[in-house]
Amino acid sequence: MTGNEALVQVLRNALGKDGVRTDPDVTASYSRDMMPLAPVGRPLAVVFPADTEQVRAVVRACAAAGVPIVPRGAGSGLSGAANAIDGCVVLVTTRMNEILEIDPDNRLAVVEPGVVNLDLRGAVEKHGLFYPPDPSSYDWCTIGGNLSTNAGGLCCVKYGVTTDSVLGLEVVLADGSLLKTGRRTVKGVAGYDLTKLFVGSEGTLGVITKAVLALRPLPQAPATLVAAFGNTADAGTAVTRIVREGVVPSLMEIMDSVSIKAVEQHLRTEVGPPGCEALLLCQSDSGGEAARRELEAIEQACKASGADMTYVTEDLAEGQMLLTARRAVLTALEVYGAWLTDDVCVPRTAITDLIAGCAEIGARRQVKIAVCGHAGDGNMHPTLVYDPNSAEEFERARIAFDEILELGLSLGGTVTGEHGVGKIKREWLAREIGPVGLAVHRSIKAALDPGNLFNPGSMFGVA
Amino acid sequence: MTGNEALVQVLRNALGKDGVRTDPDVTASYSRDMMPLAPVGRPLAVVFPADTEQVRAVVRACAAAGVPIVPRGAGSGLSGAANAIDGCVVLVTTRMNEILEIDPDNRLAVVEPGVVNLDLRGAVEKHGLFYPPDPSSYDWCTIGGNLSTNAGGLCCVKYGVTTDSVLGLEVVLADGSLLKTGRRTVKGVAGYDLTKLFVGSEGTLGVITKAVLALRPLPQAPATLVAAFGNTADAGTAVTRIVREGVVPSLMEIMDSVSIKAVEQHLRTEVGPPGCEALLLCQSDSGGEAARRELEAIEQACKASGADMTYVTEDLAEGQMLLTARRAVLTALEVYGAWLTDDVCVPRTAITDLIAGCAEIGARRQVKIAVCGHAGDGNMHPTLVYDPNSAEEFERARIAFDEILELGLSLGGTVTGEHGVGKIKREWLAREIGPVGLAVHRSIKAALDPGNLFNPGSMFGVA
Repeated sequence: MTGNEALVQVLRNALGKDGVRTDPDVTASYSRDMMPLAPVGRPLAVVFPADTEQVRAVVRACAAAGVPIVPRGAGSGLSGAANAIDGCVVLVTTRMNEILEIDPDNRLAVVEPGVVNLDLRGAVEKHGLFYPPDPSSYDWCTIGGNLSTNAGGLCCVKYGVTTDSVLGLEVVLADGSLLKTGRRTVKGVAGYDLTKLFVGSEGTLGVITKAVLALRPLPQAPATLVAAFGNTADAGTAVTRIVREGVVPSLMEIMDSVSIKAVEQHLRTEVGPPGCEALLLCQSDSGGEAARRELEAIEQACKASGADMTYVTEDLAEGQMLLTARRAVLTALEVYGAWLTDDVCVPRTAITDLIAGCAEIGARRQVKIAVCGHAGDGNMHPTLVYDPNSAEEFERARIAFDEILELGLSLGGTVTGEHGVGKIKREWLAREIGPVGLAVHRSIKAALDPGNLFNPGSMFGVA
Repeated sequence: MTGNEALVQVLRNALGKDGVRTDPDVTASYSRDMMPLAPVGRPLAVVFPADTEQVRAVVRACAAAGVPIVPRGAGSGLSGAANAIDGCVVLVTTRMNEILEIDPDNRLAVVEPGVVNLDLRGAVEKHGLFYPPDPSSYDWCTIGGNLSTNAGGLCCVKYGVTTDSVLGLEVVLADGSLLKTGRRTVKGVAGYDLTKLFVGSEGTLGVITKAVLALRPLPQAPATLVAAFGNTADAGTAVTRIVREGVVPSLMEIMDSVSIKAVEQHLRTEVGPPGCEALLLCQSDSGGEAARRELEAIEQACKASGADMTYVTEDLAEGQMLLTARRAVLTALEVYGAWLTDDVCVPRTAITDLIAGCAEIGARRQVKIAVCGHAGDGNMHPTLVYDPNSAEEFERARIAFDEILELGLSLGGTVTGEHGVGKIKREWLAREIGPVGLAVHRSIKAALDPGNLFNPGSMFGVA
């Protein structure tokens, strides 16, 4: 029996036969997330632990065998962080999908990592509560994945990212020990903020097996505003004015002309007036007079910035319909080819420059680039379209992808606003944080995972 | 020349004569914060660097000499974290007090650590902006101290603690290198969240020399509600009802009967109706109809929980006056003796049990204990009064202090909600986080500060 066979046997003993899969069809289907640029390895096995003790058994067995572990949830990620490396064990948390507790009086929930974001949203809504983080994949991504990537979404402009909704974690460390971080109270400063260190660590420091999440009161039904602009710069100016006015909408999304045209073609309807080159979509969930006041201020800012058209509705269904255009962008782009979505976050004053720069890169590299994103927090998703059957076109898309990151950094931004570093932006992380930052990352990794067991080579390599 | 004399000479060369003080009067005055329980050592020297390069020079010199550094700001802390240890160099950041930038369009400020919280609040207010963290000492504490302790305040119930307002840091590490963490953008997930690791690390990992802070739009002028209860349990029930109603006030403070009586004696006026055993003070800064709606819901919850009296005012000056009672508690207690304030945070449903438990401990230990605190987030400050000339009474207060922490933990809480661990709660931290948590703390400390240069023995000891 080889070492690998022995490891698989140990895993089977611990998890049962159906908890360990080694057939290539199955392992291949769990070997990658949604990012086409990232390298993909061949796992030795895929394991589906059912509880924390089984996770600990997997960690101990792999540590003893010197076989790396790549943890993952649903695989909706966009950085390749969950992609397998050759010979690894992929640890899938989707069987650990229980909502263990909802405590309305303390506004918190305790969940296992495999709970689907939408399921948690639905469960807490019954108690009049709200779990804000809403990545685009919220109907299938898992809380564990959201925690590992510090996922964002449309809500962030008002409610922050995942880390802002986490009170505490349970994490299996590289030696199999069980770490509890944080607390069940709203505040607490006992020791280092290990909770927020593990959130966003992309599976490189341990396996999250439980989370205590902070909930908010369910907001009011949102009122919606849409504004159309004859050029992107005016839409960018409107964003700056809205920020300066002191309005905090619950959603503020922007679409450039490429996004608009793709959606119009896809939905076979006009989503803006003739000559519309940029759309701004905003919501307020403050309710009643407060929402009206906020949207009025936003409308004024849009008009003062040269909007050709503004429209406000308090009707929920109509508001949802207006958002359809934004939500349809990625699907709509598929009429042109496969897509590759980037993720830069720039100061809110630099959104116009980013969109203009993307247009320039697209023209120079002859790649169609649609820019849409979360204007309220400057987190933009330039999305490149390429012919999946043309290696040459894919290569041009890859170059444009990097040039967009370069542009984002030059505008004072970051190379990832919410998707993460994973296996595609290692060099960019190194560039953004510099040698001292990288050395600190490596020293923390070495302190918590000296054998480089968890997701090795993702985010950054060892020195 | 001894090694110490040589070090002082190196420091003088780097900082100039008035940047380094060794006269015992001066060093003694910089050797402690506001916590009477914490041990105090005798510093070798107190240094006042004027910029980042001078901080680096101090760190390099002390590292080379093997002399520990205790960083501090104004010294308003309540955990002894800033207390000197024998033979250390106390590094005071108060000379680095420049607001380097206010960017209203991106709602951020860049500051040096010695900026006083109130000065920053005032400066950003001129731009219609708001820096939420408001510890009680906001008129003299520094941002650097706030960052190191992850300070809270009255605002937390709606706006979170310091870490929620920090985008990035510049930190001098133990080897003198300069780490930049975080970013200037609203969102960003490039690498580990080092920013939030350094926030609240109480000077044990490095010296913060610059911070990029997130600002919010200035809220509306607050409307205020005060509710009086005939017993504490009813006030606790009201808090639970308010939380369950989904209201998020901008302030929600509670005072027990001991606090009320002390303040009445101090201010020579009644602050509640006859028989008032607990007061709840709430504000809404949502403005207009929204504020009225929130305070109405709070008033209803108070009445339904048995409040004897409720009073609401939209008048700003009157609201401030109503808060005077809360702000006067510590000063008022000084008529009885010296005070020692504790800091536990419990689930919001456990506030009543905490107050009742403190009354029991006070009776048993014959120590007067006034409980007031941030009811909205469960962060309570039981404050013990003792005769500073009686070692025996001080000892009883010390025992009661610990029994309150014990009680807080037993109620599912944490041993520090906002003051920190410092040099008084090391054993309590170890107890709260357990051996695995402590081992992780030590490994991170060893990774970033292998020579144990920064604030050694504070928060936790090396193994």
